[in-house]
Amino acid sequence: MPPCFDDMDMQFLSDNAARVHPAVWRAIAAADAPDAPYDGDALSQRLDEAFSVLFNRPCVALWVASGTAANCLGLAALVPPHGGVICHRDAHIETSEGGAPSFFTHGAKLLLASGEGGKLTPESIGAAIAPIRDDVHRVQPHAVSITQATETGRVYTLAELAAIGAYARAAGLALHMDGARFANAVAFLGCTPAAASCAAGVDVLSFGFVKNGGMGAEALVHFDPARADQARRMRKRAGHLQSKGRFLAAQLLALLEGGLWLDNARAANAAAQAIAEGAGARLLEPVEGNQIFLRLAAPERAALRAQGFGFYDWGEEAARIVTAWDSREADCRALARAIAAL
Amino acid sequence: MPPCFDDMDMQFLSDNAARVHPAVWRAIAAADAPDAPYDGDALSQRLDEAFSVLFNRPCVALWVASGTAANCLGLAALVPPHGGVICHRDAHIETSEGGAPSFFTHGAKLLLASGEGGKLTPESIGAAIAPIRDDVHRVQPHAVSITQATETGRVYTLAELAAIGAYARAAGLALHMDGARFANAVAFLGCTPAAASCAAGVDVLSFGFVKNGGMGAEALVHFDPARADQARRMRKRAGHLQSKGRFLAAQLLALLEGGLWLDNARAANAAAQAIAEGAGARLLEPVEGNQIFLRLAAPERAALRAQGFGFYDWGEEAARIVTAWDSREADCRALARAIAAL
Amino acid sequence: MPPCFDDMDMQFLSDNAARVHPAVWRAIAAADAPDAPYDGDALSQRLDEAFSVLFNRPCVALWVASGTAANCLGLAALVPPHGGVICHRDAHIETSEGGAPSFFTHGAKLLLASGEGGKLTPESIGAAIAPIRDDVHRVQPHAVSITQATETGRVYTLAELAAIGAYARAAGLALHMDGARFANAVAFLGCTPAAASCAAGVDVLSFGFVKNGGMGAEALVHFDPARADQARRMRKRAGHLQSKGRFLAAQLLALLEGGLWLDNARAANAAAQAIAEGAGARLLEPVEGNQIFLRLAAPERAALRAQGFGFYDWGEEAARIVTAWDSREADCRALARAIAAL
Amino acid sequence: MPPCFDDMDMQFLSDNAARVHPAVWRAIAAADAPDAPYDGDALSQRLDEAFSVLFNRPCVALWVASGTAANCLGLAALVPPHGGVICHRDAHIETSEGGAPSFFTHGAKLLLASGEGGKLTPESIGAAIAPIRDDVHRVQPHAVSITQATETGRVYTLAELAAIGAYARAAGLALHMDGARFANAVAFLGCTPAAASCAAGVDVLSFGFVKNGGMGAEALVHFDPARADQARRMRKRAGHLQSKGRFLAAQLLALLEGGLWLDNARAANAAAQAIAEGAGARLLEPVEGNQIFLRLAAPERAALRAQGFGFYDWGEEAARIVTAWDSREADCRALARAIAAL
Repeated sequence: MPPCFDDMDMQFLSDNAARVHPAVWRAIAAADAPDAPYDGDALSQRLDEAFSVLFNRPCVALWVASGTAANCLGLAALVPPHGGVICHRDAHIETSEGGAPSFFTHGAKLLLASGEGGKLTPESIGAAIAPIRDDVHRVQPHAVSITQATETGRVYTLAELAAIGAYARAAGLALHMDGARFANAVAFLGCTPAAASCAAGVDVLSFGFVKNGGMGAEALVHFDPARADQARRMRKRAGHLQSKGRFLAAQLLALLEGGLWLDNARAANAAAQAIAEGAGARLLEPVEGNQIFLRLAAPERAALRAQGFGFYDWGEEAARIVTAWDSREADCRALARAIAAL
Repeated sequence: MPPCFDDMDMQFLSDNAARVHPAVWRAIAAADAPDAPYDGDALSQRLDEAFSVLFNRPCVALWVASGTAANCLGLAALVPPHGGVICHRDAHIETSEGGAPSFFTHGAKLLLASGEGGKLTPESIGAAIAPIRDDVHRVQPHAVSITQATETGRVYTLAELAAIGAYARAAGLALHMDGARFANAVAFLGCTPAAASCAAGVDVLSFGFVKNGGMGAEALVHFDPARADQARRMRKRAGHLQSKGRFLAAQLLALLEGGLWLDNARAANAAAQAIAEGAGARLLEPVEGNQIFLRLAAPERAALRAQGFGFYDWGEEAARIVTAWDSREADCRALARAIAAL
Repeated sequence: MPPCFDDMDMQFLSDNAARVHPAVWRAIAAADAPDAPYDGDALSQRLDEAFSVLFNRPCVALWVASGTAANCLGLAALVPPHGGVICHRDAHIETSEGGAPSFFTHGAKLLLASGEGGKLTPESIGAAIAPIRDDVHRVQPHAVSITQATETGRVYTLAELAAIGAYARAAGLALHMDGARFANAVAFLGCTPAAASCAAGVDVLSFGFVKNGGMGAEALVHFDPARADQARRMRKRAGHLQSKGRFLAAQLLALLEGGLWLDNARAANAAAQAIAEGAGARLLEPVEGNQIFLRLAAPERAALRAQGFGFYDWGEEAARIVTAWDSREADCRALARAIAAL
Repeated sequence: MPPCFDDMDMQFLSDNAARVHPAVWRAIAAADAPDAPYDGDALSQRLDEAFSVLFNRPCVALWVASGTAANCLGLAALVPPHGGVICHRDAHIETSEGGAPSFFTHGAKLLLASGEGGKLTPESIGAAIAPIRDDVHRVQPHAVSITQATETGRVYTLAELAAIGAYARAAGLALHMDGARFANAVAFLGCTPAAASCAAGVDVLSFGFVKNGGMGAEALVHFDPARADQARRMRKRAGHLQSKGRFLAAQLLALLEGGLWLDNARAANAAAQAIAEGAGARLLEPVEGNQIFLRLAAPERAALRAQGFGFYDWGEEAARIVTAWDSREADCRALARAIAAL
C-alpha cells in the first residue's frame, strides 16, 4: 500500500518524492518550441560538451529517464553477457532493479561482495574474486560497480575511491559508479566531480538528477568518448530514446547551470545534518549525505508519524529518513526535536 | 545533421516536434507535490480505471516514456522468445526501432508481410504464414502487429480491423496495435476508441500521447487484466519505471480529461486536410490522419523550404508533411497555396 | 593444467572420465544405418514412450548432449526471464555452468539458499524467499531447483523430497531436479525412479546418463506432456537438436534396457562404499552415492597420487573421489587400504 | 511425418542420414579410455594445432555438436546484440535454425539479401545495405554470412569469395562462412581449404563433419586466435561443452587424418555427378557439390519412389537429391537411369 501524502507536509520518505526545482520548470517551459525529435535538438546536442566541461575531460553524456536505465546501460557497455560484475550485496542493482541488470547485459552475473556501510574495498573485491577459478565453468568478473553515496548513506573518501580504481585497473576490471546521489557525495567531499569519479578510475557514471531537483532525466556519462556510438544505439534499442528529448536535456542543463546541482545537494545534506543532531546514539550510520538510518522501535516510529513525519521502515527496528533539496529547515528541526524527545 | 528550427515557424517535420498542450502543462505543474515514488502515486493509481472507462472494459494501463517501449513491452507479452510476430515490412517496429523488438522479446523474429498503404490484410498475413512449415526448424508466428494509423498515413476501417481480428483469433495469433497515432485514427473513423481496438480483437494497444500534446508519456494498454502483474514487472526490468511517475500519469490523465486527446487529433487531422487541398494529384496516399505524402521533386522541395516550410524528404521524389494539434491554420493554408503554385 | 592420464589405471577423478558401456557401444553401432535426420528417426521417436513406461506416467523425453543443456532448458521452461530460481549456493547451476542458466532463461536470477550436504529444505527455501518483498523492484521466485544426488554426494530421502515438493506446490513454485547422478540416488534409495522425482512433485528432471555408461546423451524429462512442443523448439533454438539424433537416442535406450542404468549406478555406489570403508573419520559427508569427500592434507594427497591414484583436490584440506560403473574392485580396495594406511 | 527407411537401401534424402565412416568408429573406440573431462583431454587439446596445420595459419578450433551451434556461436563472436548480419534470404541461418541466430547473438538481426544459386555478391550485399540509414533507429550491419557450398548446391568460386572478402573488409564487416558442406566445396574447387576460407577473408568458419562421415561433431574455426577465450566461454555458456569431449575431438581428428574429409567429399560429389548425368534439362542448378535439384512433377517423384529411391520434395515441382560419402555407385547409376527414363 503506497503511503498517503494527502495531509502531510513533513515528508522524508524519499528524495524521489521531492519537488522539481523552479529553474528546471523554467528550462522545460523554454524547451517547448519545435525542435528536432529524439536527441537531435539543440539542447541534447549540448550535453556532451556541458559534461565535458564539468568533468574537465572529453565525455559522452546521454539523458535517460531512470537511474535503473542509466546503471544498466552503463553496465552493459562494460561487461559481456558471459561475464560478471562485482557489487556490494546491498547494491541497488542487486536488490532493487527487478532484474534489469540481467536484462540489459543479456545475462551477466552480479558477483556479490560485502563491506561496511555499503562500501566495497580492494580487499572485499579480492575476496569475492578469489574463489572464482579461471576456467569456462565459472563466470569471470569483468567490472566492479560501486554506489556513491552508498545505499546506506555513506560516502567513499577520495582515498577509498582511488584504492578501488587502482585495484580495478590492475585486475583488468572496468569501474562503474551508481551515482544516484553522486551530487550529495560531491557536496560532502567538497571536491570536484572529476575527483570523485573519472580521476579515480571510474569508466561510466550514472549521474543522478531526478532526486536532486529534476523531473525525469538522469545522465549516463561515459568517460571514454569512443563508446558514444554504442551507447546511443543501446539507449535506442532499450526504448529509452524519447522523441521529445529536448525536455530531458533541458532538465540536465538547468541543473548544471551555475552549479545548481551542487547547491541542491548541499541543501539536502544540510537538512540531513540538522535532523541527525537530534539522533545521537540512534544513528546506525554516520550521516554523510542525505540519508539517515536510525534505530527506532515500532512504537517510536508510530509516535513520530503521529506528529506528521513521513518516512519508511528499515527492517524491524529502524527507519530511513531522506532529505531533499526542498526539505524545509523548520521541518528538519522539528523532526530532530521529536526524535530527541522520544 | 538535424534540421535547424531557429527561424522557422512553419514546421511540418514531425508531430514529435509539436508543443506540449497547455492543459498538460497545468497537470504536471499540479503534480509537483510530494507523493509516493514510482507508480505508487495517486495519479498513476488512477490510470487503470481511467482507461477502463474510456474503453468501456477492464484494462491495465501503464505509462511508458516512448512509443518504442510501449510497442516492445506489448509484443514481449504476446510472443515467446522462440516465436515470431507478423508485421508489415514498413512497420515502425521493423524499420525504425533499432532492434528494440528483438531486445524486449529476447529474440523473437519479425515476419514480414506486404500490403498497400502500410496495411495488412488476412490475405497478406496468410501469405506470410503459408511458407512457414510447422516444425522446429522454422520460427512460428505467435502474434500480429498492425499500426493504426499506418506509417504511410492510412487508417484501417472498422471492417478491415474486424477481418484481421477474426483471422488472428482463428489462427491462434495475438494482436498488437501500434497506436502512435491511434488518436488520429479514431478521429478519422469517428468511432469509439474501443471499436477501433479491443472490440476488433486487439489484445495490447500502444496508445500514443506524445505526438498529440503530451511531453513524454505514452500508454501501454492491456485489454487482458490478467497480464497486469507481468506487464508491471517487465516495465521495471526495462528501466522504464520512472521514479517520479506522477508526472507521466498527469500527462495521460490531462489528455483523457474531457476528450482532449480526441480534440487534439481532430485539429491535427483538419490541418492535414487543409494542406491536402492544395496537393491534388501529388498525393501519394489518401490523407486520413495527420500525415501527407506528396510527390515533390527536389527543386520543388527546395522552393517550399525557401518559403519557410519545414518537412522531411521521403525518398528521392517525395516529401512527408506532418501536422499536429498546434499546427496553425494560416501556415497550413499558406503551404497548400505554395504547393498548388508549384 | 589438465591431469595426465597416460600411465594411470586407477583414476577416480570424475565419472565423466569413465568408459562407455559395451551395451551402449553395441546400440550406437546398430544405429548406424540411414534414418531420418534430427529426431525423426525411429529411436528418437521411441523416447517418450520408453520414459513414460519407466516413470509410469506420460512424459516427454528429449536427448540433449550435456547436463548443462538439460538443466538450463529445463529451467527455461519453468521461469520467465524476469523471475528467479531458488537453488543451493553450491548447486552446479550456480557454481559450474558458466552462466548458462542465465543464457537459457534470458536472465532469470538464481536465488541462493543454504543447507547441509548441498540439500535444500522447506525451511531454507522459505528463508531465501522471506526477504523478497513482493513488488516489481525485487526478482520473484518462480521455481526451485534441487540436485539429486547433491554436489556433495548426498541423497535426498523420499520424505525430504516430498516436503520440498509440497512446499513448492503450496508456494506456487515449479520444481526442477538436476539429476546428473539421479541413477545413483535411485540406487541408494532403492525406490522407483518415479518415487524419487515426479511423485514427489518434480516437474522437470535432468536425468544423467553420460556419467553412468553413456557417451554423449542426457535425458531432459518433462512430466507435463503439454510442454512437449515448447521443449522441442527451445532445444532446436539452442543448437542442441543434433542432425544424427539416432546416436543419442540409442544411448538412452540401451541404458534403459533391462535396467542397465540402475545396475551401473549400483556398481558405482558399491565401489564408493568399498573405498569409504577405509576412510573412517576422514569422511566429510556420508557416502550415499558415488562421490566421496575426504579430509586429506596435501602431503597425504601427494602420497596417494604417488601410488597411482587419481582424484581432484577439494579446497585446501580435502579431496573428492568419484567412482563409476567401471571402477575396478581391486582399485577400490587398494585405495581404501592406502587411505587407511596414511 | 518422418520418412520410413525400413526397406530402403537407395536413400538420397540427406547427408545427415549417411553412415559414420569406419575410421571415425575406430577413432572413437580408441578414445574410450579415461581422460580429462570436457576439452581437457589429449585429443581436444590437439585440435587447435591440427586445424592450424590444415589452414596453414594459427587458428582456434572447437568441436560443437551441431551446425546450428557452430554457425550461431560463430556469428555471436562477430556481431553485437544491437547489430545485424547480412545473409542470403535462403540461408540456413535464416530459414532453418529455429531462431537460434537470434538466441546466440542476443537478438542481432538477419538482414536479407538476394542472389542466384544462394550466392551473395558485393552488389547484392551493397543493395541490402544501401537503404540502411546510419542512425540509431536502424539496425546496422556488422557481418556477412555466406554458405559454402550454398543451400542450393552451388559453390562460390575463389574469385567470388575474394570479391566478397574484399568488400566486407572495406565496409568494416566481419565475414562468417557456414561450411556445413565446406568439404564438398573444397573438393569441387580443387583448392586448399585456406584458399576457400581464411585467405579470402573469412573470419570464422563453421566446418561441417557430420554430413561427411562424422557422427556428432562439427568444427568451429576462428581464424583470429585472440578469440579463443571468448569462444570457449560462449560454448560452455550454451551448454555445448560436452563432458566427454574426447569423443568429439576423435571424430574430427580421424576425418582430418590423411585427408579423409576430402576423400569423403570427393566421393559424395562424384556420386552426385553420376546422378546428374541422367538429369539433363531437369537440372535446376548446376551440380557442383553433393546436392542435386531437379524439376520433377509429382507423378515422376512417385515413380522414382516406387522404384525404391528416397529423396525430399523441393516445393511443388521439384526434388532435392543428396549424396554422401557412402552413396553406392550402383544406386547412383540406377537413379540416373531411372530419371532419364521418366
